Amino acid sequence: MTLYSDVNTIWVLLGAAMVFFMQAGFAACEAGFTRAKNAGSVLLKNLMDLSVGSPIYWLFGFGVMFGAGSGFFGTFDPGIRGDYSSILPAGVPLWAFAIFQTVFCATAATIVSGAVAERTKFSGYLLYSLAIALLIYPITGHWIWGGGWLSSAGFHDFAGSTAVHMVGGVCAVVGASVIGPRYGKYDKNGKPRAILGHNLTLAALGVFILWFAWFGFNGCSTVGMDSDELVETAGLVFFNTNLSPALASCAALVLTWFRYGKPDVSMTYNAALAGLVGITAGCDAVAPIGAAAIGLVSGVLVVFSVEFIDKILKIDDPVGAVSVHGVCGAVGTLFVGLLSVNEDVGLGLFYGGGFHLLAIQAVGIISVSIYVGIVAAIVFLTIKHTVGLRASKEEELAGLDPSELGLPTAYSGFSMQPHTIDDDSLSAPVAVVGEAPVAEAIPVMREPVFRKEGVPKMTKIEIVCKEARFELLKAKLTEIGVTGMTVSHVLGCGVQKGKPEYYRGVQVEVNLLPKIQVDVVVSKVPVSDVIEAAKKALYTGHIGDGKIFVYDVENVVKVRTGEEGWDALQDSI
Amino acid sequence: MTLYSDVNTIWVLLGAAMVFFMQAGFAACEAGFTRAKNAGSVLLKNLMDLSVGSPIYWLFGFGVMFGAGSGFFGTFDPGIRGDYSSILPAGVPLWAFAIFQTVFCATAATIVSGAVAERTKFSGYLLYSLAIALLIYPITGHWIWGGGWLSSAGFHDFAGSTAVHMVGGVCAVVGASVIGPRYGKYDKNGKPRAILGHNLTLAALGVFILWFAWFGFNGCSTVGMDSDELVETAGLVFFNTNLSPALASCAALVLTWFRYGKPDVSMTYNAALAGLVGITAGCDAVAPIGAAAIGLVSGVLVVFSVEFIDKILKIDDPVGAVSVHGVCGAVGTLFVGLLSVNEDVGLGLFYGGGFHLLAIQAVGIISVSIYVGIVAAIVFLTIKHTVGLRASKEEELAGLDPSELGLPTAYSGFSMQPHTIDDDSLSAPVAVVGEAPVAEAIPVMREPVFRKEGVPKMTKIEIVCKEARFELLKAKLTEIGVTGMTVSHVLGCGVQKGKPEYYRGVQVEVNLLPKIQVDVVVSKVPVSDVIEAAKKALYTGHIGDGKIFVYDVENVVKVRTGEEGWDALQDSI
Amino acid sequence: MTLYSDVNTIWVLLGAAMVFFMQAGFAACEAGFTRAKNAGSVLLKNLMDLSVGSPIYWLFGFGVMFGAGSGFFGTFDPGIRGDYSSILPAGVPLWAFAIFQTVFCATAATIVSGAVAERTKFSGYLLYSLAIALLIYPITGHWIWGGGWLSSAGFHDFAGSTAVHMVGGVCAVVGASVIGPRYGKYDKNGKPRAILGHNLTLAALGVFILWFAWFGFNGCSTVGMDSDELVETAGLVFFNTNLSPALASCAALVLTWFRYGKPDVSMTYNAALAGLVGITAGCDAVAPIGAAAIGLVSGVLVVFSVEFIDKILKIDDPVGAVSVHGVCGAVGTLFVGLLSVNEDVGLGLFYGGGFHLLAIQAVGIISVSIYVGIVAAIVFLTIKHTVGLRASKEEELAGLDPSELGLPTAYSGFSMQPHTIDDDSLSAPVAVVGEAPVAEAIPVMREPVFRKEGVPKMTKIEIVCKEARFELLKAKLTEIGVTGMTVSHVLGCGVQKGKPEYYRGVQVEVNLLPKIQVDVVVSKVPVSDVIEAAKKALYTGHIGDGKIFVYDVENVVKVRTGEEGWDALQDSI
Repeated sequence: MTLYSDVNTIWVLLGAAMVFFMQAGFAACEAGFTRAKNAGSVLLKNLMDLSVGSPIYWLFGFGVMFGAGSGFFGTFDPGIRGDYSSILPAGVPLWAFAIFQTVFCATAATIVSGAVAERTKFSGYLLYSLAIALLIYPITGHWIWGGGWLSSAGFHDFAGSTAVHMVGGVCAVVGASVIGPRYGKYDKNGKPRAILGHNLTLAALGVFILWFAWFGFNGCSTVGMDSDELVETAGLVFFNTNLSPALASCAALVLTWFRYGKPDVSMTYNAALAGLVGITAGCDAVAPIGAAAIGLVSGVLVVFSVEFIDKILKIDDPVGAVSVHGVCGAVGTLFVGLLSVNEDVGLGLFYGGGFHLLAIQAVGIISVSIYVGIVAAIVFLTIKHTVGLRASKEEELAGLDPSELGLPTAYSGFSMQPHTIDDDSLSAPVAVVGEAPVAEAIPVMREPVFRKEGVPKMTKIEIVCKEARFELLKAKLTEIGVTGMTVSHVLGCGVQKGKPEYYRGVQVEVNLLPKIQVDVVVSKVPVSDVIEAAKKALYTGHIGDGKIFVYDVENVVKVRTGEEGWDALQDSI
Repeated sequence: MTLYSDVNTIWVLLGAAMVFFMQAGFAACEAGFTRAKNAGSVLLKNLMDLSVGSPIYWLFGFGVMFGAGSGFFGTFDPGIRGDYSSILPAGVPLWAFAIFQTVFCATAATIVSGAVAERTKFSGYLLYSLAIALLIYPITGHWIWGGGWLSSAGFHDFAGSTAVHMVGGVCAVVGASVIGPRYGKYDKNGKPRAILGHNLTLAALGVFILWFAWFGFNGCSTVGMDSDELVETAGLVFFNTNLSPALASCAALVLTWFRYGKPDVSMTYNAALAGLVGITAGCDAVAPIGAAAIGLVSGVLVVFSVEFIDKILKIDDPVGAVSVHGVCGAVGTLFVGLLSVNEDVGLGLFYGGGFHLLAIQAVGIISVSIYVGIVAAIVFLTIKHTVGLRASKEEELAGLDPSELGLPTAYSGFSMQPHTIDDDSLSAPVAVVGEAPVAEAIPVMREPVFRKEGVPKMTKIEIVCKEARFELLKAKLTEIGVTGMTVSHVLGCGVQKGKPEYYRGVQVEVNLLPKIQVDVVVSKVPVSDVIEAAKKALYTGHIGDGKIFVYDVENVVKVRTGEEGWDALQDSI
Repeated sequence: MTLYSDVNTIWVLLGAAMVFFMQAGFAACEAGFTRAKNAGSVLLKNLMDLSVGSPIYWLFGFGVMFGAGSGFFGTFDPGIRGDYSSILPAGVPLWAFAIFQTVFCATAATIVSGAVAERTKFSGYLLYSLAIALLIYPITGHWIWGGGWLSSAGFHDFAGSTAVHMVGGVCAVVGASVIGPRYGKYDKNGKPRAILGHNLTLAALGVFILWFAWFGFNGCSTVGMDSDELVETAGLVFFNTNLSPALASCAALVLTWFRYGKPDVSMTYNAALAGLVGITAGCDAVAPIGAAAIGLVSGVLVVFSVEFIDKILKIDDPVGAVSVHGVCGAVGTLFVGLLSVNEDVGLGLFYGGGFHLLAIQAVGIISVSIYVGIVAAIVFLTIKHTVGLRASKEEELAGLDPSELGLPTAYSGFSMQPHTIDDDSLSAPVAVVGEAPVAEAIPVMREPVFRKEGVPKMTKIEIVCKEARFELLKAKLTEIGVTGMTVSHVLGCGVQKGKPEYYRGVQVEVNLLPKIQVDVVVSKVPVSDVIEAAKKALYTGHIGDGKIFVYDVENVVKVRTGEEGWDALQDSI
């Protein structure tokens, strides 16, 4: 007589590996949907979610979640040394179950990272990641899956629409609110701006990896295959786990096509994830027709939710984590109460089960949201007011990779474009420590520097400066009437001064510094005005402020109108 | 007594997840082997293949394929509600088998997308993707696997060299023929041009993902593991599924090395897929030595087939889908008739089985090709003459991402090079609605604009214009005798006019527009000629046609010859 | 009565697929951590490791490793036709076990490729890859796993810290030593320079793929699940296989943060792999607390080892393969002797088992290191002195993709930055066959070319040249006192001459050649000196040496100081 079931354990371990693989999907997805200058930061945060969460869950989380304890809290059992035989799935050894649960915990933590990407300070991030694995996920996990009060009440969340995704989503919305939007995300009227992700192929690959891994997430949550019922359930779960995201994508494709005039690639990919989150709670309980309905609703909902959060709530969630995991997690959980056809779970409202199950599902998502919301708020606010939660403005504008991690770029060798967020606050120069007022530092000549002849002279002014100053320079030049400029990415040759950065233990030499070259050709606007405006925009008193070169121009032709000379310069390119 | 087999169902569900994962591989592979300006389009089409195909297969395909029906057609059974107990693998529940079959169907549809990439209209694409899942794959699938006439006749296609890959390949060749080649793929003499893929690391990752997933595709096609025979077969299938692509890569490496003088990376990766397709039909029936032979043949064949299709048939198949899936699918199916050592399947010709099996295999691939070819032709031609199958020339040149999807770029933040296809048709300007003839719009001065002194004057002309016009500009400048030019990618600063584009529901602001700057230094060629030629090439009458700047040049030195001034300008850089 | 065990075979085949998937992880990781100009080369080498190794292992390796033979060598059994029933895991058919072992062999070969990346000649690489599969891996594999002398002595290496990883690591250190460092890796004082990888998101995805696959590598190395003991072991192995890399990442994060001032992303990712390698030998034998310890030690060790190898040994290992696989493989094997709690394996020193197991483990890693080191040295030196092991300097500087594979770029369409390694040897021009001495070829005028007026004239010199000559040009210009320059990436328009390159059988047309434009503005330094210096740096006598353009400059302003004209030019930008 064997103690363990081989097939059950194979199933659980297969599930563990596949759910682990979600980390690859999240990393690819979150890095791809954000900007290149923060790619290293996103990747490191994703790795540390897993790497901090895993030992914490071993030391504390598993005991808190699965220890007998009360209906609200398990036990304190560092290192998982207690007796869990009463809660272990039939025939599955402890460590197999423990690794399965560990990777679920890591998933919840990772969800948050996308919502707070591109501006969160690394040390603050580590702390909240630790807090989720310690104080948030295992507690509500105990309620739902660890024999706690919700599970006793009949709350049904098969693989974690609520326990994993909504918990992550609520933390995400709290975190994104406390941290505030990325600079430049909203204009001075509060209108959101689109900030494109830097690598759509990577993001799409991430979504496909997540969808693949979700077969383990949902399918292996039967935690056993040694009965006809389990086998049949697993088959249904797999089928539903594909049908829902497929229809969610279709719904979002059609909806964005109608709403925006063209199909939106990234939203359609997001919708696939929404459909996966939505079906997770009830994948064992609804028929395929129910899965189809949940998918369609999730696909529509995610589009409106992303817009609502972005435009109305004005919470900046770069990857849509709140909508995908929070909103669709909650809605998917509720849908079990409507569409369940599984008598063991209880029939849903639409199948004659009355309001009973629906009410329990509602109680579950509300109580979990309240607990997670409060604790997350305490955690994020505490971090904010102690070690700090947000990178400095200078760091954020430069990118977290170079500023926080000393990584010049995640894409060495590629020419990158200047970052151009129209941050209105940039009309005032970025504060630099010890900066002298411009007027004092450089006496600007008010007289024209160059004589004009009878024919209006045309002059080209070539300004080579730091990328970070470009927006300000553009603003200053526009102020004085410069309407056209040509911008290119160049490399200034010199030796980097200042604090050395290390890459794998070796000091990074940067003697070709990325610079922006802005070319302006003027005739009516005095050259001296352009030089003065450029000085104002660029001066900090530090090495590397830039240089301005002045050339004579013989003629200018505007192609559209055929105008030449002075006339050709009276409008934008 | 259990109704279901736990191990069989685990095996089938593992297979379903792995075959699903092929979608990631195809998306990465097809996006990587095409150009960056169409990456979003390739990704969206891949996602929709799966997302449209899955519900269609649930609503119609499964019934058509596995319903009892006749030898040619199953039944109409929307939602899979019939009794399939007679065809279900032993001990596998219906939904487990249904998801396994669904992901196979999605694979067939995805194969086509690579062959018609970079020029297919999105709405037309959706329709044919739907048609494959509805009218093509389930019908021939019924013949081969659903108890239809080919399966009764003894046709052997273990995991789908014919049923999946050749079906996809035949659709691909029909589609690519009807749609026609990408602009610039063939020069005016019909000679093909190489159009490099934009992301080889992504494509290679895609191939490895596909190879990995193929262990599920072939291995789990035993659809059971509960007998010694099945277990032994599964082991052999796994071994063969690795040996064949390994040798196919070796063959293509050596062949391309000899033929082109250097090994061809992308072709060698393609050959791995060819080896996988080739072994799919007979992976359970041939010995490892047979798998090795099939691999070697597939690896050689794919190289010649890609060349034949590209150079002789002049069908533009950007990723080699026709050769990999169509040709190697057919040949792999035939090889079962030669190399089978499995008595249940029937012995192959080389193992004393005579021509019987070979003949049946030939009948199978011919009949399937004819059916699929005819239906695919009807489908593609119908779409072509109704909603349209091909994006407009303007859209294709700009890239399908910005034009069809409103996605400025899949790689935001990266500097991209101008697209340079030598499209001969570009010697005539691209048609623009409402364009006025250039001669009327701009009176071009025939007199030299600038006086020459004793020493021949040298002048630099800097032309800033739209990327899309570059090829035409180059042609016009070459015509008037300009032999050298320096091209750089710059950003023109201005505000985008016209129809707004949306990214995740938010309007995309583009105030740095990508432009090309072409620098020409002339002495012999009159400046006025250059300006006139540029105007002709660039004029459309729309905002953004560009500007031309003229500067004096003091000297020019040609490094190789030491010539200066006028002399240095008489040849190319 | 069944001959085979279904669950054991499922487990072994699942493991085979997952271990195969490591190839994707290694390819992504190694390509991402090296430079873009060699990406195609890295990818092709990875593919060929697998594609050459698989048939070689079938033809020879498996017999050598698992044939009865002696304690040192199995048998010669081409095609695996012998009787292996005595060594096959219970209930696993031969081909299932053979594919499982094949993918382990391919892993060992792949490890080396990272350490010798970016400078190894392709043909030489193929030979050593073949040698590993033929002469190295199966021999030591026989000792450890094939019933050889180490396995008889009680050496414990559960899944291959020594048999796979350390073997690969020792080959890597020998190979990297024999081949020598990449040009520019060390300056003339032997100080290493950081050479950043080109695609960190790809590398990170590779690490996650490897971690995922490692669950198969370690977990499925139970090669069976049909007993309580095996099931329990598998669970523990999975748990340990996650805990160790998690803590290794934490350790490296903290350590690099302290040591370099900022956390090092790529090192932290590397540490995860180190933790995986470290736990591989004893994942079945140590308790989770032991796995945690091994992880922490591996994470610390990999940081110091990378520095030691880079800075002290001065061996150039671009991806850290020697430290990750070699060092942590050895240390992980030793730790079994310290931390084992498994009585079947023998108790470790810290658990009262005395020095016995530790001594055997030490004997194992020493004897394997000696054998592998000697054979690898013979192999690499033989290749070096016959077909050659290293690409030429020209090829390496240009990148192996264009030079060895005829692949213009792995990222077509992306603008790439010039390669800037400060190779001191570049102060002497790169040798070009048939090059005439500069002084003879071009008489350089010693008189100033242009007259100066009263006011010091300022002149802009624009040099358009080949990327490969940039470092030399910079050196020459610096010599004559030019302190500032602006570098940009442009495209020179012309037709490529010389040997045609092929992409998928079609000749590649390159009529926009990547060039570097270097802009220098001088006043004090004579223009003629700049021209002369540029000629010296750029002249080879071949087409494409470049051109120099000279323009008048009206004024220059230095932003930081407000200086104008002559004064503004007396320092760097």
